[in-house]
Amino acid sequence: MANTEFGYVRQFEQWDGLPKSNWIVVRIDGRGFTKLCKKYCFDKPNDRRALDLMNTCAIEVMRQFVDVVLSYGQSDEYSFVLHESTSIFERRASKLATSIATAFTAEYCMKWTSCFPDQALSSPYPTFDGRCVCYPKRKILRDYLSWRQADCHINNLYNTTFWTMVIKGGMSNTDAENELKGTVAADKNEILFSRFGINYNNEPMMNRKGTVLYRAYHSENATNGVLSDTSSSRKVADPASKTQLEKERKQKQKATIEVEHVDIIGNAFWDAHPYILASKRGEDYGE
Amino acid sequence: MANTEFGYVRQFEQWDGLPKSNWIVVRIDGRGFTKLCKKYCFDKPNDRRALDLMNTCAIEVMRQFVDVVLSYGQSDEYSFVLHESTSIFERRASKLATSIATAFTAEYCMKWTSCFPDQALSSPYPTFDGRCVCYPKRKILRDYLSWRQADCHINNLYNTTFWTMVIKGGMSNTDAENELKGTVAADKNEILFSRFGINYNNEPMMNRKGTVLYRAYHSENATNGVLSDTSSSRKVADPASKTQLEKERKQKQKATIEVEHVDIIGNAFWDAHPYILASKRGEDYGE
Amino acid sequence: MANTEFGYVRQFEQWDGLPKSNWIVVRIDGRGFTKLCKKYCFDKPNDRRALDLMNTCAIEVMRQFVDVVLSYGQSDEYSFVLHESTSIFERRASKLATSIATAFTAEYCMKWTSCFPDQALSSPYPTFDGRCVCYPKRKILRDYLSWRQADCHINNLYNTTFWTMVIKGGMSNTDAENELKGTVAADKNEILFSRFGINYNNEPMMNRKGTVLYRAYHSENATNGVLSDTSSSRKVADPASKTQLEKERKQKQKATIEVEHVDIIGNAFWDAHPYILASKRGEDYGE
Amino acid sequence: MANTEFGYVRQFEQWDGLPKSNWIVVRIDGRGFTKLCKKYCFDKPNDRRALDLMNTCAIEVMRQFVDVVLSYGQSDEYSFVLHESTSIFERRASKLATSIATAFTAEYCMKWTSCFPDQALSSPYPTFDGRCVCYPKRKILRDYLSWRQADCHINNLYNTTFWTMVIKGGMSNTDAENELKGTVAADKNEILFSRFGINYNNEPMMNRKGTVLYRAYHSENATNGVLSDTSSSRKVADPASKTQLEKERKQKQKATIEVEHVDIIGNAFWDAHPYILASKRGEDYGE
Repeated sequence: MANTEFGYVRQFEQWDGLPKSNWIVVRIDGRGFTKLCKKYCFDKPNDRRALDLMNTCAIEVMRQFVDVVLSYGQSDEYSFVLHESTSIFERRASKLATSIATAFTAEYCMKWTSCFPDQALSSPYPTFDGRCVCYPKRKILRDYLSWRQADCHINNLYNTTFWTMVIKGGMSNTDAENELKGTVAADKNEILFSRFGINYNNEPMMNRKGTVLYRAYHSENATNGVLSDTSSSRKVADPASKTQLEKERKQKQKATIEVEHVDIIGNAFWDAHPYILASKRGEDYGE
Repeated sequence: MANTEFGYVRQFEQWDGLPKSNWIVVRIDGRGFTKLCKKYCFDKPNDRRALDLMNTCAIEVMRQFVDVVLSYGQSDEYSFVLHESTSIFERRASKLATSIATAFTAEYCMKWTSCFPDQALSSPYPTFDGRCVCYPKRKILRDYLSWRQADCHINNLYNTTFWTMVIKGGMSNTDAENELKGTVAADKNEILFSRFGINYNNEPMMNRKGTVLYRAYHSENATNGVLSDTSSSRKVADPASKTQLEKERKQKQKATIEVEHVDIIGNAFWDAHPYILASKRGEDYGE
Repeated sequence: MANTEFGYVRQFEQWDGLPKSNWIVVRIDGRGFTKLCKKYCFDKPNDRRALDLMNTCAIEVMRQFVDVVLSYGQSDEYSFVLHESTSIFERRASKLATSIATAFTAEYCMKWTSCFPDQALSSPYPTFDGRCVCYPKRKILRDYLSWRQADCHINNLYNTTFWTMVIKGGMSNTDAENELKGTVAADKNEILFSRFGINYNNEPMMNRKGTVLYRAYHSENATNGVLSDTSSSRKVADPASKTQLEKERKQKQKATIEVEHVDIIGNAFWDAHPYILASKRGEDYGE
Repeated sequence: MANTEFGYVRQFEQWDGLPKSNWIVVRIDGRGFTKLCKKYCFDKPNDRRALDLMNTCAIEVMRQFVDVVLSYGQSDEYSFVLHESTSIFERRASKLATSIATAFTAEYCMKWTSCFPDQALSSPYPTFDGRCVCYPKRKILRDYLSWRQADCHINNLYNTTFWTMVIKGGMSNTDAENELKGTVAADKNEILFSRFGINYNNEPMMNRKGTVLYRAYHSENATNGVLSDTSSSRKVADPASKTQLEKERKQKQKATIEVEHVDIIGNAFWDAHPYILASKRGEDYGE
């Protein structure tokens, strides 16, 4: 049969399962969004509608992928953190990256009108690329999230200053760019304050901190996403039973998804929500 | 600065460039399309509107990704063949798979209404997973395409027979399934013909062969997608000049994309369109 | 120049750097050692000379590769544990595996005569294959070592019983094999004790536990392999200075290599030598 | 049982099988041979005994690994070419690289005395690192070999000139180095000829061309390494029968290994020995 004759080509597919016991981040980035911003006249430096749309899409992705324990978004990018113990898609990198990126893209296209009621989306439509990165330790994962939030801060301070100089200050793009060359944070704060009376710290939290999504558990039985039964010993080799997993899945689906614009570089957020990066039953590596 | 402190996390991104001089196939598959078919009451065994939508999306993907030399689609899957010499996205697997899968998904969502005017798309929206596979030889790539077309034939013959037995023959799904167990192609042809007067070979080509997309070049200068200047010697180490590449890119964009439902297992199609899998200037490996 | 024309082939070398912040184990295994055992009439179930030779070679490998923090050997295999922070060979898997495997092989061939003074080594000479495996957490690395030591125990109990039945008990290989089929540890202990008066727990520790190699630091300044200055903060992105690294290197080279046949499944060994798997200055992941 | 509890660590071993239908080159390089050359006072620019030893070891490696179709060596490196269809070690990169590198190392250590009868080998012993590289086309494999032979030529011309200037010309190393900076091949030829009466083209072929090893088949049945029965059609999915493979294996083992110092950049060598890189029965990719 024909299929027998050609089936050997399957051997060319290389297995791309990500190593176990690593936190997986799927980060998606808008493709060619500089053009898109212009095409739809996004407000500068931040377009509230566009950020709302990003957040709405990310919330839906988190609902669909229950192993995502936290998401962090800023500008046209979003990072989805999958628990180190996830076995979704057998941890295959391509499955993960494409499933999350296409889910996000579909939402973005379909929900566009609710955020931009006056502007119909036209071809070429918005798309996102994506990639998986593994972080072997909780500490390093937190540093990854800090890196993205620090990036948000740096870019937003720059963009706020630049666009204020241009829009309110009437400077040309080139003049503003040249003046900002080599300035540090304090310089930009000073420009904003002394020339325009703007205290950067009063800018919207969403612009300065980006957006953090995580699950909140409200039922009296659920102990913050960690099932009460934690008595069993290490279970890496002997994964939780199907019933147990199904129970957890339902619990996660019932959880509400919280949306916050909050610092995640310091410890306060994590101390307040220890369950987000908690080990699964019996998988405490002593981290 | 904060970014210096956390920037080390970038070192955890593993390079995923695909090996040079391999044909790259990006295959996308509808996620959970069994459910989707039911939700939107797709016709059985083939829904003409759904296949048209798939093809429309694939044509647009080919327009956007000019290094795709041929695409083959059937059912809810599409394979995009990138030339072995492509350097798109530095051949990074995740970039390639997510860019093509999200482009396809965006089209699918946005063009849905044109193919299904009576049924609004509702959440959860259709999505596609994707993966890259490398084929080191033209011959093996052709075997890959043959494998997909043989798969199309096998599935379509089965589905046509099954649904005819159920819809026209009034059998239950279980009865039809049981009767078809262990049958070969000849048996199914016989069932269709003797009981329902259907000659399988008269079924629509699109259902039996799937859909082949490729570029056709009409300008008098273009010699079928291969630039006339092939005098230069091997150029793997010394890629074509930017001007040259830009010229080619424009030529490809001006090409029309042909849509055919034709056999690609035999040699006739390939003999008629030798330029599709032709080597690039100076890269003839003697295959 | 010719080299320019052909140099493009270098692009086919794929980067094989192992992910950062993972413990790396290089395990080597004797190739075709069943044959070798017969050829040189190794004593059954354990050949003291052969085990001594393995240990001698491993000690030399540890001297040459100062980033190896611990080695564990049994039978014809040895596992070399490289600290999670090592940057030897830029963590390239093939460099690491081949450098360690060939160093071990060279020692094995050249030191053979000192352990087997009466038997000249003849072609084909002994060789070892090797591989790198990454363990993202200290706890998992310890489970790996426990796995090898448990394997040592299981095999040695079986082999001791089998060969005692054959050599002392005069049974045929087949009869002994058949009788041992399906037996558990207690059964084998009983056979040894009741039929041959052998208390398995009195067998040599080296046979029962395998061999553990680690560095011991004796100078008054060295605090067990961890430099006294641990005040500096996280340094993943900003690796220790060259001077510092050179200092450490010398300290490690001056360390003596301890050889023990001791349980490493329980905590006692690790509690007594906490520095072996200790974090490097400023790289505490809270594990 | 203990092993069940810890066995999960096996999941951390990543599969490293190389893609099918690619020529595999395992190249080994002497580790720290600059030091070794000094320690054992190798003759400059080429030490005949050292090159002989390299070749002797490579011949033995080719005898042991019958899927090696050709080997090329120069200086302290050797490249072993495995046929694109090889399934040795399931094409696992680490197995391949370590098995070949340790086999070479063992030979080098054990045969040392036969080439250097007056100098006993002392610790640290010579070792070799190794790596696998895949080449998807015969043409690219040939370019790889050309690259190594071009490299041999460039280095040997430089070294011959440099050491002649130093040894015969009495120049200091620094003076010779400075004078050679920026010179091209013609300049070096001129220096050799006009100052020292040396015609570079009369230098030994081994030094100028390196060493090529390949199998020669002498039996009347064998048609140069390709079994006479080539009638069967494509067999990638349906590999040759065990009997067939065993037959081939024996034939290869009976082949003599030819040692030549010959140009492999041009076509003459390959035209004279077409079977070396010939496709296996039924696997002709039209290259």
